[in-house]
Amino acid sequence: MALSKNKIKYIHSLELKKNRKTEKAFLAEGHKLVGDLLGHFHCRLLAATDKWFINNKELQLNDVGETLIVNEEELSRASLLKTPQQVLAVFDQPEYPTDPSVIGHSLCLALDDIQDPGNLGTIIRLADWFGIEDVFCSPQTADIYNPKAMQATMGGIAHVRIHYTPLPDLIRNLETDIPVYGTFLDGENMYGEKLSKNGLIVMGNEGNGISPEVGSLINRRLYIPNYPTGRETSESLNVAIATAVVCAEFRRQAPSL
Amino acid sequence: MALSKNKIKYIHSLELKKNRKTEKAFLAEGHKLVGDLLGHFHCRLLAATDKWFINNKELQLNDVGETLIVNEEELSRASLLKTPQQVLAVFDQPEYPTDPSVIGHSLCLALDDIQDPGNLGTIIRLADWFGIEDVFCSPQTADIYNPKAMQATMGGIAHVRIHYTPLPDLIRNLETDIPVYGTFLDGENMYGEKLSKNGLIVMGNEGNGISPEVGSLINRRLYIPNYPTGRETSESLNVAIATAVVCAEFRRQAPSL
Repeated sequence: MALSKNKIKYIHSLELKKNRKTEKAFLAEGHKLVGDLLGHFHCRLLAATDKWFINNKELQLNDVGETLIVNEEELSRASLLKTPQQVLAVFDQPEYPTDPSVIGHSLCLALDDIQDPGNLGTIIRLADWFGIEDVFCSPQTADIYNPKAMQATMGGIAHVRIHYTPLPDLIRNLETDIPVYGTFLDGENMYGEKLSKNGLIVMGNEGNGISPEVGSLINRRLYIPNYPTGRETSESLNVAIATAVVCAEFRRQAPSL
Repeated sequence: MALSKNKIKYIHSLELKKNRKTEKAFLAEGHKLVGDLLGHFHCRLLAATDKWFINNKELQLNDVGETLIVNEEELSRASLLKTPQQVLAVFDQPEYPTDPSVIGHSLCLALDDIQDPGNLGTIIRLADWFGIEDVFCSPQTADIYNPKAMQATMGGIAHVRIHYTPLPDLIRNLETDIPVYGTFLDGENMYGEKLSKNGLIVMGNEGNGISPEVGSLINRRLYIPNYPTGRETSESLNVAIATAVVCAEFRRQAPSL
């Protein structure tokens, strides 16, 4: 059965946050992403070429609300990508209970108004790599179900829970001995610090960094050394890059082996 | 003097690589980027609002070919950005002699067909942070003068020399004792390796990794540990993220202090 005009309209409507919110749904495209999400989130609609179905016989599609075999031309009309892939799918947005006690016994991230969907998705992807399973986002952070953010997660969203919640309240309600980290130009060289296996790492907005209110609640101020260390420059790191370098150092200091 | 139609056409023409190549020029937009590039590269044309000129009186603009005060509406017609900034400028592409001997006495990067301009620009930005001054790019790597790549460098291009050159020849002509690093799933855990202060770190294409020909020339195979280490997963790291994590570890092991 072909993709009707109404279905294409529905798929395109998911480009907008308000429609995703009303529908409690999101769009995913491409072999890697859709393959990773199937079995993790309920799929309402899956549209793919016959070639994709032949190459993915092993996937369990019983639970999928509706599957459609489409040709490439139909798929490209539905796709939001410049280079449409062989498959696209609409999934239910998952609902997680937000339980701040995870911060007491595992390493978590907090994102303070990350604006760029690509940065957000890249951070979720690297959180997955570094075994960080809970990411707390300020309400002003980009929407993880934005198609660009979703593409950038590369499936990491299947293993990382995203919670949108005001960060000041979240941090104020933590036990006072739980470390809350942030990176600052006047922080302590992180290579000289003993980093923990639990707590919260706060990363700030692309232009403005960590907001003053959240910043005042941080009890472990870190600095990512540049090279040569201490030289005065105008340079900075992209927020996803800084997140990765910090997470890598936490995991280097306390590996799982 | 206002921006003529011809000037706007000229600025827009620099979106295409062939025109940038013919003109040996590139476009830069925004306060941070243009400010960082002025004084490093010859500026042919600078168009900015009166507000920008008032706020940047300290900048030396004597050497600029042509300066134009424009209003925001004119600027937005010339701009390639979704959210135009107060300033845009056209610079000469710099010309560097390509001297592979730098690889013998400093740490350098090689990019093997990085496709995404945003990834390329982000890598140049982090190279600047980590004090890597020479980046060798395969001819198929994205063009650093692509406006998206240039924006992502955030001015890093002012301190990092980019050389487009075939990587197999470059590596074959190095002294055999110079380390050539690459990351592979079956490489050695990089935290267990003694990393050098010189040599070449090769990073591969977003989809296909390092090409077989270049891969065969790598003499130090590294692995970036995930967490928990060794778990089998489908996840991976974005190439700019992987570059950052590797560069950070090189600089941690051999800081400049």
